[in-house]
Amino acid sequence: MPEIAYLGPPGTFTEQATRALTEGFDAALIPYDTVPRALAAIRAGEVLAAGVPVENSVEGSVPATLDALVTGEPLVAVREVLLPVRFDLLARPGVELAQVRTVASHPHALAQVRDWLAANLPDAAQRVTSSTAAAAEATEAGEFDAALAAPVVTEHYRSLVPLARGLADVRDAVTRFLLVRRPGPLPEPTGADRTSVAAVIGDEVGSLTELLSELSLRGINLSRIESRPTKDRLGEYRFFLDFDGHVADARIGDALTALRRRCNEVRFLGSYPKADRAPATVRPSASEQAFRASAKWLEDVRAGRLA
Amino acid sequence: MPEIAYLGPPGTFTEQATRALTEGFDAALIPYDTVPRALAAIRAGEVLAAGVPVENSVEGSVPATLDALVTGEPLVAVREVLLPVRFDLLARPGVELAQVRTVASHPHALAQVRDWLAANLPDAAQRVTSSTAAAAEATEAGEFDAALAAPVVTEHYRSLVPLARGLADVRDAVTRFLLVRRPGPLPEPTGADRTSVAAVIGDEVGSLTELLSELSLRGINLSRIESRPTKDRLGEYRFFLDFDGHVADARIGDALTALRRRCNEVRFLGSYPKADRAPATVRPSASEQAFRASAKWLEDVRAGRLA
Repeated sequence: MPEIAYLGPPGTFTEQATRALTEGFDAALIPYDTVPRALAAIRAGEVLAAGVPVENSVEGSVPATLDALVTGEPLVAVREVLLPVRFDLLARPGVELAQVRTVASHPHALAQVRDWLAANLPDAAQRVTSSTAAAAEATEAGEFDAALAAPVVTEHYRSLVPLARGLADVRDAVTRFLLVRRPGPLPEPTGADRTSVAAVIGDEVGSLTELLSELSLRGINLSRIESRPTKDRLGEYRFFLDFDGHVADARIGDALTALRRRCNEVRFLGSYPKADRAPATVRPSASEQAFRASAKWLEDVRAGRLA
Repeated sequence: MPEIAYLGPPGTFTEQATRALTEGFDAALIPYDTVPRALAAIRAGEVLAAGVPVENSVEGSVPATLDALVTGEPLVAVREVLLPVRFDLLARPGVELAQVRTVASHPHALAQVRDWLAANLPDAAQRVTSSTAAAAEATEAGEFDAALAAPVVTEHYRSLVPLARGLADVRDAVTRFLLVRRPGPLPEPTGADRTSVAAVIGDEVGSLTELLSELSLRGINLSRIESRPTKDRLGEYRFFLDFDGHVADARIGDALTALRRRCNEVRFLGSYPKADRAPATVRPSASEQAFRASAKWLEDVRAGRLA
């Protein structure tokens, strides 16, 4: 059975996401205590792949993941999932909401359910733990009255029962997770794919504009951009870009060769089906057929068959 | 004495940064428990300004700050500071490093000193608290042997003494903080300024490229870009942009009017001296003199004095 790493401890949202990312094939999920260690385990051949968080609509991007992806041997994403950030409030059997005097969770979880706690448990003391799963464990052990945790946590702390479900002050908060592995055969294009790259350029005025022009001139729709200074050279930036399309598509391949010529470094981070399944729109001048026809035309011109 | 809000509790890096941001004028610093509440206090006229974190080179941007800046009445940044992220390990007097059995701090702080702890306190148990300052408070109370906290924390928990100073696994980690207030007279241009804006555009292919071209065509150097989906409309993005120059500069003013014409929404988030004092380079065609001369020329042409 293939082994898949994830950011532990067991019972967190990353475990829940990694279950979704590996749906359809038997895999043993192995927790690691940091994202860099989970990715190092892939590079060392200890695991086949890893499930890692990449961005959260409330907390922002996950720089630990972005940095670990571009440091060391190449890795590529092959699947993505979006997980709604909603917590369950869990307690030991027989404990009722009105009896809850202490609520424990990770600080981010407490922050994301702040309004709900103020309205429903105004007198309960809040206790912080190192993870949502650690809060569940301590609650089961009797240390706290209730824990805010991912629904999957009850697979590990089976005596706990929900007092409330699906809690979130921001209703549409989601976290995006990727299944990452060593380079190999790519996922098949589906017509609704995303490609991720990291591109390093100097900070000359206009260099980013020119880089993005290589995408927009080919009708490629950017869905995310984020700059991070590289640690190697002052004034050098690494841009993490997500855009619609698959590297097997002619327009994406053509754009990537242009980025490769233009940038100090380009790392391909994968082409994989978009979780929302929204098909890419392709303008006629950037279609497969248009690329094929223009290549054929150039070949004919160069051979003296056309003018 | 003017009152200045900051993200509390007292004794954290944000207090330390807000002291630096308000250096040179007497101010009473008032802690608030979230960034949105600190900014709401400015909008309500309860405080003059607020010191808030905006990005961290290890943890990434601070979405709570970005989102709170663009929601509600306008606010502008008037000053920035960069604070190195380095922790002190603090204990009660008489406690020696070899005696430390428990170390407490915020999970982010424990993560940023992970290697140092593994090398120097491999057997100490790690305990999480809701803030670095809460760890210091509990250590003073005898609950833990040592706390990882900001140096400023000893102003509040005066009995604590450092066992080690300036701890950080990543040596050059910094956090950028802004002093934010209601719109009013702007800081004077210094020749080494930064301008921040939030611009909302639809996701038509090329709209970001065109927006950035308005900057690069005027020789304006972008130092940061980050996209965040707006919560209002699907497929609409808000870009947080930082670039060199002051809104009083001709090239910056000219670019901002172009952004205003082009974008669904542009919010000016301030022009303020850069913490690193690195002067902006201005190409001849984007100099003040060039803008003045070209305006004069157009005026003459329109008046029939030149052709």
